[in-house]
Amino acid sequence: MVGGGQLARMTHQAAVDLGVALEILAESAIDPAVLAGARHVVGPAGSLDALRSLAERCDVVTLDHELVPAEHLDALQAAGYVVRPGAEALRLAQDKLLARQVLGQAGFAVPPHMPAGGDDLDAVQGFAERWGWPIVVKSRRGGYDGRGVHVVDDLDSVRGLLASTPPGGWVVEVHVPIACELAVLVARRPSGWTAVYPVVETYQHDGMCRELVMPARVPADVADVATRLATSIADGIDATGVLAVELFFTTAGDLVVNELALRPHNSGHATIEAAVTSQFHNHLRGVLDWPLGSTEMVAPAAATVNVVGPLSGDDPARHLAAGLSVPGASVHLYAKHARPGRKLGHVTALGADQAEALDTARAAARLLLGE
Amino acid sequence: MVGGGQLARMTHQAAVDLGVALEILAESAIDPAVLAGARHVVGPAGSLDALRSLAERCDVVTLDHELVPAEHLDALQAAGYVVRPGAEALRLAQDKLLARQVLGQAGFAVPPHMPAGGDDLDAVQGFAERWGWPIVVKSRRGGYDGRGVHVVDDLDSVRGLLASTPPGGWVVEVHVPIACELAVLVARRPSGWTAVYPVVETYQHDGMCRELVMPARVPADVADVATRLATSIADGIDATGVLAVELFFTTAGDLVVNELALRPHNSGHATIEAAVTSQFHNHLRGVLDWPLGSTEMVAPAAATVNVVGPLSGDDPARHLAAGLSVPGASVHLYAKHARPGRKLGHVTALGADQAEALDTARAAARLLLGE
Repeated sequence: MVGGGQLARMTHQAAVDLGVALEILAESAIDPAVLAGARHVVGPAGSLDALRSLAERCDVVTLDHELVPAEHLDALQAAGYVVRPGAEALRLAQDKLLARQVLGQAGFAVPPHMPAGGDDLDAVQGFAERWGWPIVVKSRRGGYDGRGVHVVDDLDSVRGLLASTPPGGWVVEVHVPIACELAVLVARRPSGWTAVYPVVETYQHDGMCRELVMPARVPADVADVATRLATSIADGIDATGVLAVELFFTTAGDLVVNELALRPHNSGHATIEAAVTSQFHNHLRGVLDWPLGSTEMVAPAAATVNVVGPLSGDDPARHLAAGLSVPGASVHLYAKHARPGRKLGHVTALGADQAEALDTARAAARLLLGE
Repeated sequence: MVGGGQLARMTHQAAVDLGVALEILAESAIDPAVLAGARHVVGPAGSLDALRSLAERCDVVTLDHELVPAEHLDALQAAGYVVRPGAEALRLAQDKLLARQVLGQAGFAVPPHMPAGGDDLDAVQGFAERWGWPIVVKSRRGGYDGRGVHVVDDLDSVRGLLASTPPGGWVVEVHVPIACELAVLVARRPSGWTAVYPVVETYQHDGMCRELVMPARVPADVADVATRLATSIADGIDATGVLAVELFFTTAGDLVVNELALRPHNSGHATIEAAVTSQFHNHLRGVLDWPLGSTEMVAPAAATVNVVGPLSGDDPARHLAAGLSVPGASVHLYAKHARPGRKLGHVTALGADQAEALDTARAAARLLLGE
């Protein structure tokens, strides 16, 4: 697995269940997955040499993040290494414009959008006048957890952004009025078998997913459409392992595709406790082309609350005993150095309904933050 | 943790959830917990030096097996290291005669028994004539998974056994006619708080636990008595972490204490999937004196089937994909070298009832054995 963050850490835990040895290409020897005991080589995910040294040790190469040059994955595949998901699929998770184009051409609803570079002020103005302010200006590549995403109300702000255009440029799109955000996780094998988890409802704060409940509190027909949509995308882009499809459920009642991630995803953390098979197990099973596990829930509802480093710099690990005092809360800490705004862990709880589960998870998360 | 077997392996997985670094005193660098990535020193659990080198690296010393000289734990405690469970409690798990004496004196029902050495043929004959054949002749120390336990029908067999008396001698006891075997797992903090799991029903084969269902299919009042009995023992012996109390439910309707284990226990493996908090989490929480987690089940019933190395020497890891094809089965492999009769993994399944869960777990276990 390329990357040694918390997703790799939890994938390692699943690998231990299966007796599979997970090898990591880590950024450093204190990456969360390395501290969890995954075997590793240290090297930059942007280096073909480092990727090759990982691939030589593995049956299958997979990813915990998208910050890998797709052309390097092409090179690994050309050299005969097995890379899942493949480079073509990964490009859609790396490039917001490409994803919008490919999904739009395939008939999936995506927000109206246009690419924009430093010289495109007039074109962006025309776009905003056609669709209305505010508009969303997103970094085409590299943004995540809300970084590189700007909701913009006027032309002066656009001018400011275009003055410092990121590599790859911007994608400008309509600010979709949303009722809620949803995510659908699909596990898929190379042979085409899929297993879909119940639709998740996510709550963002500063662009970072902070809370989620499972299943989403949307009408059954909306959940059905979201599920079929995500499965179609998984098939259409030939995803392997876990694909997370993030969706806007608009105030008009439509489902619009927002982003794709081709790996275990923050929106699926509740599956560890709440589903028969976690997303981490199913990611491994998918990329190893093994039978996928049941995605059924073991409780009526579940919720996950992320534990994000507080502004004080305080470390939630110091408050672990307090967090564990909440009955029914399952605490996960990632062994990361505490920094304000950094995801340091999460809490999941099951419940008779979403509100109950959320109450429990929030109570423990607050205690972990020393509140 | 002293010992690097599968119990330490699964404890490591729980430690990763909590951001706790588990350090292992391992027998070798291919111990299951070492292969799962737990930090370790290699050394014999019988060596005080090795134990001290572990203790120096840890806040608390705990155990994955009983094969540690209790006097060494005394020495560690005397030197100021924190050892949980303590040496006194451990002695009861190491010495079947002492356990019977202490529990019997405290008023708990234990089978009628007597110690026996090489010269005690007449006394054993008298015991058998008083209580009736067959009798059970058990190694006082060191036996587990049925090793050192003999059900004996006649005096010639007794003579044969006494001719090769093990260190510590034998315990001779009544062969209790049992309806079923039960186990109760209690997690306990040094401060005295306990959390008890639903009573488990275990099935032995050649003395090794092969299958278990949770909750046990016994009348509610029997389960209540078993639960109170196990909690009383935990308090009485000042257990910390997980205590497993193995019980005989006799055909006469009585509950008789068979054995104690002061660590996570094979009979609790179903708690990983079936309980809100696994026995491994609660062992850590108990020995670290942190709030214990909920022991409630997340399903009406669960079953675990051990995957024991077949006579052919075949390795279940070779059949993993087949084992994963059973919907609802959670497979655990311990990364141990396959040998006939060795516990190599287990399968847990949830179900609407015990029979359903057992069917699922058995189906996957059979496929893992290549059947």
